[in-house]
Amino acid sequence: MELPTLIAQRTIAKARILLEALPYMREHRGKIVVIKYGGAAMDMAPLARPFAEDIALLTSTGIHPVIVHGGGPQVTEMSNLLGLETRFVDGLRFTDDATLDVATMVLAGRLNTKVVSDLLAGGVRAVGLSGVDGGLLHARKQLEPDLGHVGEVVKVNAEVVAKLMETNFVPVVASIAIDELGGQAYNVNADVVASELAAELAADKLIFLNDVPGVVTPTAGLLSELGASECADLIQSGVADGGMIPKLQSAVGALKNGVRRVHLIDGRVEHALVLELFTPEGVGTMISLDAPDEHPPAEGS
Amino acid sequence: MELPTLIAQRTIAKARILLEALPYMREHRGKIVVIKYGGAAMDMAPLARPFAEDIALLTSTGIHPVIVHGGGPQVTEMSNLLGLETRFVDGLRFTDDATLDVATMVLAGRLNTKVVSDLLAGGVRAVGLSGVDGGLLHARKQLEPDLGHVGEVVKVNAEVVAKLMETNFVPVVASIAIDELGGQAYNVNADVVASELAAELAADKLIFLNDVPGVVTPTAGLLSELGASECADLIQSGVADGGMIPKLQSAVGALKNGVRRVHLIDGRVEHALVLELFTPEGVGTMISLDAPDEHPPAEGS
Amino acid sequence: MELPTLIAQRTIAKARILLEALPYMREHRGKIVVIKYGGAAMDMAPLARPFAEDIALLTSTGIHPVIVHGGGPQVTEMSNLLGLETRFVDGLRFTDDATLDVATMVLAGRLNTKVVSDLLAGGVRAVGLSGVDGGLLHARKQLEPDLGHVGEVVKVNAEVVAKLMETNFVPVVASIAIDELGGQAYNVNADVVASELAAELAADKLIFLNDVPGVVTPTAGLLSELGASECADLIQSGVADGGMIPKLQSAVGALKNGVRRVHLIDGRVEHALVLELFTPEGVGTMISLDAPDEHPPAEGS
Amino acid sequence: MELPTLIAQRTIAKARILLEALPYMREHRGKIVVIKYGGAAMDMAPLARPFAEDIALLTSTGIHPVIVHGGGPQVTEMSNLLGLETRFVDGLRFTDDATLDVATMVLAGRLNTKVVSDLLAGGVRAVGLSGVDGGLLHARKQLEPDLGHVGEVVKVNAEVVAKLMETNFVPVVASIAIDELGGQAYNVNADVVASELAAELAADKLIFLNDVPGVVTPTAGLLSELGASECADLIQSGVADGGMIPKLQSAVGALKNGVRRVHLIDGRVEHALVLELFTPEGVGTMISLDAPDEHPPAEGS
Amino acid sequence: MELPTLIAQRTIAKARILLEALPYMREHRGKIVVIKYGGAAMDMAPLARPFAEDIALLTSTGIHPVIVHGGGPQVTEMSNLLGLETRFVDGLRFTDDATLDVATMVLAGRLNTKVVSDLLAGGVRAVGLSGVDGGLLHARKQLEPDLGHVGEVVKVNAEVVAKLMETNFVPVVASIAIDELGGQAYNVNADVVASELAAELAADKLIFLNDVPGVVTPTAGLLSELGASECADLIQSGVADGGMIPKLQSAVGALKNGVRRVHLIDGRVEHALVLELFTPEGVGTMISLDAPDEHPPAEGS
Amino acid sequence: MELPTLIAQRTIAKARILLEALPYMREHRGKIVVIKYGGAAMDMAPLARPFAEDIALLTSTGIHPVIVHGGGPQVTEMSNLLGLETRFVDGLRFTDDATLDVATMVLAGRLNTKVVSDLLAGGVRAVGLSGVDGGLLHARKQLEPDLGHVGEVVKVNAEVVAKLMETNFVPVVASIAIDELGGQAYNVNADVVASELAAELAADKLIFLNDVPGVVTPTAGLLSELGASECADLIQSGVADGGMIPKLQSAVGALKNGVRRVHLIDGRVEHALVLELFTPEGVGTMISLDAPDEHPPAEGS
Repeated sequence: MELPTLIAQRTIAKARILLEALPYMREHRGKIVVIKYGGAAMDMAPLARPFAEDIALLTSTGIHPVIVHGGGPQVTEMSNLLGLETRFVDGLRFTDDATLDVATMVLAGRLNTKVVSDLLAGGVRAVGLSGVDGGLLHARKQLEPDLGHVGEVVKVNAEVVAKLMETNFVPVVASIAIDELGGQAYNVNADVVASELAAELAADKLIFLNDVPGVVTPTAGLLSELGASECADLIQSGVADGGMIPKLQSAVGALKNGVRRVHLIDGRVEHALVLELFTPEGVGTMISLDAPDEHPPAEGS
Repeated sequence: MELPTLIAQRTIAKARILLEALPYMREHRGKIVVIKYGGAAMDMAPLARPFAEDIALLTSTGIHPVIVHGGGPQVTEMSNLLGLETRFVDGLRFTDDATLDVATMVLAGRLNTKVVSDLLAGGVRAVGLSGVDGGLLHARKQLEPDLGHVGEVVKVNAEVVAKLMETNFVPVVASIAIDELGGQAYNVNADVVASELAAELAADKLIFLNDVPGVVTPTAGLLSELGASECADLIQSGVADGGMIPKLQSAVGALKNGVRRVHLIDGRVEHALVLELFTPEGVGTMISLDAPDEHPPAEGS
Repeated sequence: MELPTLIAQRTIAKARILLEALPYMREHRGKIVVIKYGGAAMDMAPLARPFAEDIALLTSTGIHPVIVHGGGPQVTEMSNLLGLETRFVDGLRFTDDATLDVATMVLAGRLNTKVVSDLLAGGVRAVGLSGVDGGLLHARKQLEPDLGHVGEVVKVNAEVVAKLMETNFVPVVASIAIDELGGQAYNVNADVVASELAAELAADKLIFLNDVPGVVTPTAGLLSELGASECADLIQSGVADGGMIPKLQSAVGALKNGVRRVHLIDGRVEHALVLELFTPEGVGTMISLDAPDEHPPAEGS
Repeated sequence: MELPTLIAQRTIAKARILLEALPYMREHRGKIVVIKYGGAAMDMAPLARPFAEDIALLTSTGIHPVIVHGGGPQVTEMSNLLGLETRFVDGLRFTDDATLDVATMVLAGRLNTKVVSDLLAGGVRAVGLSGVDGGLLHARKQLEPDLGHVGEVVKVNAEVVAKLMETNFVPVVASIAIDELGGQAYNVNADVVASELAAELAADKLIFLNDVPGVVTPTAGLLSELGASECADLIQSGVADGGMIPKLQSAVGALKNGVRRVHLIDGRVEHALVLELFTPEGVGTMISLDAPDEHPPAEGS
Repeated sequence: MELPTLIAQRTIAKARILLEALPYMREHRGKIVVIKYGGAAMDMAPLARPFAEDIALLTSTGIHPVIVHGGGPQVTEMSNLLGLETRFVDGLRFTDDATLDVATMVLAGRLNTKVVSDLLAGGVRAVGLSGVDGGLLHARKQLEPDLGHVGEVVKVNAEVVAKLMETNFVPVVASIAIDELGGQAYNVNADVVASELAAELAADKLIFLNDVPGVVTPTAGLLSELGASECADLIQSGVADGGMIPKLQSAVGALKNGVRRVHLIDGRVEHALVLELFTPEGVGTMISLDAPDEHPPAEGS
Repeated sequence: MELPTLIAQRTIAKARILLEALPYMREHRGKIVVIKYGGAAMDMAPLARPFAEDIALLTSTGIHPVIVHGGGPQVTEMSNLLGLETRFVDGLRFTDDATLDVATMVLAGRLNTKVVSDLLAGGVRAVGLSGVDGGLLHARKQLEPDLGHVGEVVKVNAEVVAKLMETNFVPVVASIAIDELGGQAYNVNADVVASELAAELAADKLIFLNDVPGVVTPTAGLLSELGASECADLIQSGVADGGMIPKLQSAVGALKNGVRRVHLIDGRVEHALVLELFTPEGVGTMISLDAPDEHPPAEGS
């Protein structure tokens, strides 16, 4: 029986890696995963293709991904090109009529179309939406501080998203919202949108693709697991820095509203999504409502 | 029995008008109507509200409207604001990379969001799409003349539109398309998009909202009905002028591909859609494949 | 832009009236409306056609009407023709075997067939039933006073009605009922049948077509809105007269069993149904469980 | 093993009879059987109960019965009671306005309600209809001879019947029809209605309950099977007498329109339907399109 | 009316017997009946055909039967043929590896295939299963006494059985089970399997086909009805003998878990199932949770 | 951006292998794959677990596998144990009554239960069947040569298999068949069963797990692709040896009946199925109806 040796060991090793992914495929099958897309993963051209491939693999194994994106830097850039004056309140950008118009063009027009066409090129049946479409995101004016047309999400009406997922379309949502009457659009925070949408859809996971490896502390380094209460400690103790605070808050909000797990992963790593979802190694920090040690080793990170 | 006279005759007249609309409601119920939206109807602020009300009435009587829009003038305006140089070939605008980017922002971002939020404000469950979403419009580069990223539609994959209509969403489609591989976007003619989409959806009607009352000839004035072959005559004889020719061509194309009727109506008239669809008067020109006199008086215009 | 003036102002006014009906269409869409048909509206030949047109408009806008009728005068007339002796108990007609037979013939045979064929002629898919069909109305003998085969409804088994409405048939129900075992038929009051059927179907509205303009008091004239408790007052204080009392009692019963609103309207007015349901004017008295002033002006009358 | 002898042989014989019915149950399960009900079976009180039991057994074994009835003698009787003059044309009764009114009352009112309540009493979910309901039977005036409002069926629109059967209601149809526009009712022949309805419903069987044992010839006695062509012979040769001719013609018409078999059975025999459908003996004449000997002995009669 | 006498009285008697079965057909229609098959009914060749006919009649009247069988004697016989040594613990057979292998072959192979093909021959769409298939029966090792691979059922996962019944297949289950991990099979008691499966399926009835007429006491003879508490008395008082005790225990267990009635009937009687289910006589003992006299005479036995 | 280097390159390589499988996952998703299981893959204990893992991966990516097995050697072994005399006709084993009984026990009992429990242990929802269940495989006696109860498949009635696949059960079929009347079982060839079942199910693939690497010729070595006509050549020229001939014939038969591709792969290689279906390398010979070169490199082997 010497013939099987004709098959290179390398090939058999491939099968082992595929089979190593099997328990993860089973666990995730049929689940909804909301992905906040942004930062390097969205901005750097060479990462667009691996991202699309990851989403394609997710859909091929029966996962239902929903993608949420913002795009602050690109809005600023276009505002500058158009010579709009930028006004700040408490260090935060003020969104006047002209800026809202630019944000709508850049987020719902340029970036959304870009993400959708990159996904299409990777074989994903992506459909672009903003929070205006089908009244998906209802917002009202944020009052403290008054930042003009910056809004806070008051209701998610996920019917259009759910309908598209029924036939395996992948919704891609730009962070523009609308008031209840359909009259006034608002710029809203994409992290918050991802968190609220995950809660409304009863998503299994909410994943933030960031430009850092996860939650890192000076003493413990990268934390691979974290409980919701520990997130509060990190914020209060000042260990979590500026960019991380809203993500941790969104994470805890999503968990309290029924999302099972939140992942903060490194979007700069190629195929970070596939690694986090389908391999035992994981590539970031996983947050759950309970203390981390209650979770058996069934999942990556 | 003098009491009924307490009810003002004006009120009873109202009921008569509602009932006059009854045969049209029955005829149109459950049908798909593709509407090319543009010109004054889209640009003039006071016409946005009546348009939304008309679409709301259509959906309330069981019609499934699909709206298609372009927006050439707004693209030009934004290009100018950004200081882009405009290049012309054979008198036609050349779409280079920067212009395509502007077109995407303006059509799929600003205008599409504007139309959707106006419809929402009128109580319509509108959802914005471009031809990129779900691979809705596949295009390839137009070769004669070479106008850069101006494309011609080669395939309509209407699955995303059909899915949305299933639960009574109203799709609003911006005239941007994508090549088969998802790599390259194209600027495409919105009249053609409306015609191709109507054919693919087996729409009952295709309606163009124009800035003219319909097809007008120097001798006969406004033609209320027209056969497809007469359209060809009007083009060949030079009676149809520049702006009308592509609409007549799109109309004939749609009719040959199974759309039952095409209407060219005056978008400057408030509630033109409701008048055309629900009253015996009609407000423009109706074109059908057959000679006009074969159609009994069951329908407006 | 002088062209739009070619469209007569009268035509545009038509569109406005259609659009004025839009909020009512939306509110009523998909709702069940039970209509007690009788009196002049049923007896006077010139009103049959407008009634059928009204029902057709209701169905065209997605309302599900159910029609209930009695026909006491016609039963009396036929009994007289057949030379049957009429016996009275406490001033109420006694239904002996022969009279029940006549009632069955006249209500379930002549009148039901007449209403159904008038509706068919108006384009309505009407189907005639009596309370015997599919065991729709179970009754038992009324004991106080003993009026022979006059029964009181003890159970509504609305399955046959619900099934017919599923495919947009319009059930027309004659007020004959049957005992639990299927052995004995009963003559039952059509106002009560309408009320019980509306409750069982969880109808949105119950509408009585009467020969008076609505609830009229000597001091206040026609009351356009009324609360359930005020109905009781009107009965107790003797303001409500003989013919109105059973209707007010049926109205309150229906409201307490979940019907949202009851309307008493003037069946002598042409198109009273369409006026009441689709215009802000209304043509009678609307009764709801709550005090009238809690209702915003969203609905006619 | 003497214990089984405790079970009476009579009891075991019961099981054998039930099992003898098994192949018939299998064969008929899910099939539509149209039954023309009339004559002694309908008129004689003691036969109403066994008829209801038979229909109950049919439905319990998964058969979908549809019952059609006329009632000429009862119409005549009521006309006489009302003192209407009877007019004859070529020996056939002329149906003037008054007679049509009586026919509607008697057939769609009294008799239909009677059949439905008898069936209900036997546990059958019967629903009464006439050909007017849902536009079930479209007729036009019969011209030769002119018998007033006697019509001939031109179209069967069986949607209401099919809908009711979906949830195992048993439709009971009175032989009154309506013209295409819903304006004029007609008296139509119940044998023809049964035949046309069976064809439209693609019924497996059409059964006529008559007052004779089946087709009897002077030479051969009762014919247990018959081919369609032999029916023609019987009519042409004059062997078939007056009452049998229209039934044979209706039978052949049904067979040519796709009904598999027609049975003429003796309605005076208690449980004739069950005997014909579930026992090998059969109780009448079975007619099929093909020669009788092509049918294997799988079915009764 | 002498003709009906042509129909033999014997034939009419047949119809009466069929109709006598009607209330039982109605009562059982759509219900699940679990049948423990064994003893003479399974072993004696002449009884295989009547059993298959009975099951066929059950399915033809809309009952969903599920059959469970063991086969201890046949396992012993095959073990002997293979020269396996039989070991006993407390007088009970010990199931070592070899014996389990034989049990699997005999129960899931030979006997199951035999029952299925006998049923197929009688026109029943039977499908053989063991408790291993689809993880139907999860068992764990029985500890007291240790009988080797004899297990006790810990969970019934009836999905595969329910799925097959959806399209009117008749599942036939051999009493072999599997542990939770799929690694170790067990021999389990078929009476217990039938009882647990009936409870899991919310069966209406559980029927044991035994080699005795039912529950017989020295003083009262055959008991035709019995309450659950009386079963306990019979066991405690020693009146119930060895073979009857596990059946009574299984019966009470099933009743407590929601099965409506348990029947112990004499499998040696031909057509015992049909007699018990469709005739008023019945052929054994019926056990229900309540006292026997609470049950009206609606059912056999 | 040094942080990503914290992720081991080995981990990223894993993601690449998973993504390399993506096009295969997409291609196979929702397809039916019939697998003839046998030889070393079934007999050698260490290969049972990898086989179950492979089937689990197939189901996790949306493939619907159906497994067919025989087991001649095990039947012979048991026959010997039972001291049955083996008779040969033309060098082929004769199946007398006793041998058929042994085959039923071994194939439908022991081996089928073994395969099912191994699959359950690997997380696959397996359900064992033989060709008797639900009348899956109808056979008749093979006449040339007369080998007793050896049959040839005449009809596949795949309803039970299709029903189980609907809810993602994996059917495992033992090669025992039954005659049309359900009276006589037959031993049938498992290769033929797999081929016929694949054709009936319109399977995308039929895979034979053999004890050789695929089709090997003295001159060309292992052939990775093959057309149907070349199979015929290999048989006629004598290049294909004894064991390969029936497999090649079954392969060609399946292809002619609509199966898209047949694979002969080496069951002795661990994870041969996953390698063949999800990697570009492949591990055997792929046969299609057309010439091999027409197939682009979209698939393994």
